[in-house]
Amino acid sequence: MQEELAQVEATLETVTRSDIPGLQGMLQHVLSGEGKRLRPTIALLAGRFGEHRLELLVPLAASIELLHTATLVHDDVIDASDTRRGRLTANARYHNAAAVMLGDYMFAHAAALICRTESIEVVKVFSRTLMAMAAGELTQDMSAYQYGQGTMQYFHRIAGKTASLFATCAEGGAMVAGASKEWIEALRNYGENVGMAFQIVDDILDFEGDEEELGKPTGSDLMQGTLTLPALLLMERNPDDNPVKKLFRNKRRREHLAEAIFMIQNSDILDESYAVARDFRDRAVAVLEPLPGTPERAALVDIADYVIRRRR
Amino acid sequence: MQEELAQVEATLETVTRSDIPGLQGMLQHVLSGEGKRLRPTIALLAGRFGEHRLELLVPLAASIELLHTATLVHDDVIDASDTRRGRLTANARYHNAAAVMLGDYMFAHAAALICRTESIEVVKVFSRTLMAMAAGELTQDMSAYQYGQGTMQYFHRIAGKTASLFATCAEGGAMVAGASKEWIEALRNYGENVGMAFQIVDDILDFEGDEEELGKPTGSDLMQGTLTLPALLLMERNPDDNPVKKLFRNKRRREHLAEAIFMIQNSDILDESYAVARDFRDRAVAVLEPLPGTPERAALVDIADYVIRRRR
Repeated sequence: MQEELAQVEATLETVTRSDIPGLQGMLQHVLSGEGKRLRPTIALLAGRFGEHRLELLVPLAASIELLHTATLVHDDVIDASDTRRGRLTANARYHNAAAVMLGDYMFAHAAALICRTESIEVVKVFSRTLMAMAAGELTQDMSAYQYGQGTMQYFHRIAGKTASLFATCAEGGAMVAGASKEWIEALRNYGENVGMAFQIVDDILDFEGDEEELGKPTGSDLMQGTLTLPALLLMERNPDDNPVKKLFRNKRRREHLAEAIFMIQNSDILDESYAVARDFRDRAVAVLEPLPGTPERAALVDIADYVIRRRR
Repeated sequence: MQEELAQVEATLETVTRSDIPGLQGMLQHVLSGEGKRLRPTIALLAGRFGEHRLELLVPLAASIELLHTATLVHDDVIDASDTRRGRLTANARYHNAAAVMLGDYMFAHAAALICRTESIEVVKVFSRTLMAMAAGELTQDMSAYQYGQGTMQYFHRIAGKTASLFATCAEGGAMVAGASKEWIEALRNYGENVGMAFQIVDDILDFEGDEEELGKPTGSDLMQGTLTLPALLLMERNPDDNPVKKLFRNKRRREHLAEAIFMIQNSDILDESYAVARDFRDRAVAVLEPLPGTPERAALVDIADYVIRRRR
């Protein structure tokens, strides 16, 4: 994969080139980082299940990574986040207006790149994902600090916000390869389940890691009023009285947040959350069943494992 | 056109439907207004030069209007504008974060709608326009309060920011109709020139109209540090000493702005600006030459005239 990923990087590198003053530096800032390029890797692997057309897969993979990064840039504006992975966000380093424009510019380039697959069907999948992600982000924001949410709403939200893009990586790659309907469906399901596992682990790490490791404060989601799986489990176990309820109702937030973090860390809530993530991982692996046992399939299983194991 | 425009409205109306709390109201707020739907009209008319396929033209026209409105929503965040056409902007009525998400959601829907043309070539034109518009907006912001700009930079900027979308309306309509290369090119050129005329008149009105009529303060572009044609002509005529130079250098902005507005209004600068806009209008009409003399062609000429005549 190294050689193919290098081509994706090279494509992203061409996107950063611009003679608009200041833009090149901004693009490099948000696109460099030490991203794991998980999504492009999934797209490239899925593109091996059929006719391997690297000249179409590379723009697909680059487009998805670009879209993903554009989303992060706008999310950081929306959440007023200062740091991500220990680096300054675009809104913090430049300003909100610049970050909005930067994200739009990246969306535009992602759209142009996806067209290079020459397939209206792939573009349709891409646009459906855009919609799911935008709806997921809106739902998260609109439901912030609303206490009466359950795990079903959480799963629905992260399906849109995160899993849909993972699904598109795998589905898009398989479509470009001209895979059979059955294989495309299997790979889409794989992506969806890996994406669910990925987001759940992300939400666990928000409670588990310390600030140093994570590059952002512990419990930052809850502080923003976003209910993730560990917080929801805490509420389920203590329906009548719990620090989340107090946090959402009260102004003395820091104290309640610290209590919530303590209770979550000193219980089996994170273990249970990991068990849920592993369920999705297991499903991701299981749905690959119809595919031939190639090294690429094994690599997809490795990615599903990695998503659970990762520490950031 | 009334019947066809009603179908575009109906399509936009379906976009506003959503069960995400609060979203429907936000979408209705930004999409209703008394927009002239100029861009959809151009797309619908261009789609008459060939095989008339209304089922593809309506999503195209709706997509373009949606993209246009999404751009306005983000522009108002970027410029921190409170009002547009006398109504509160989304960022003023809700908040910045909501307006960013709203714009992204509308971009996503615009992408989904454009896919309904079933043509990867049309989607490519759409994505190129996205890029041109994003680059135009970035260039405008990055060059704000920079004095050393000339009219060429201005024309280049508005070509990206505004004319590219008008060009896409006409080109997209003609492509959907399966028009000949020559006709597609003619209509694209028409759109580009009408778009240039449109933006120049917009920039004239910013100096000409009073606040009541315009729904925003007179000279608001200049106040934001954006050099438009009237301001550039003022600078050209008074290269050594002029209120724009002072405005960009000084903090006592209100006073210099008032002086600039006075000098522009009490000279032939606005007449000259109109003459430039009319040149683009004349070119828009001239490039329609290869097309047959149908009522649709006459309607396109009427639109070009209207763009010059309009008062807001």
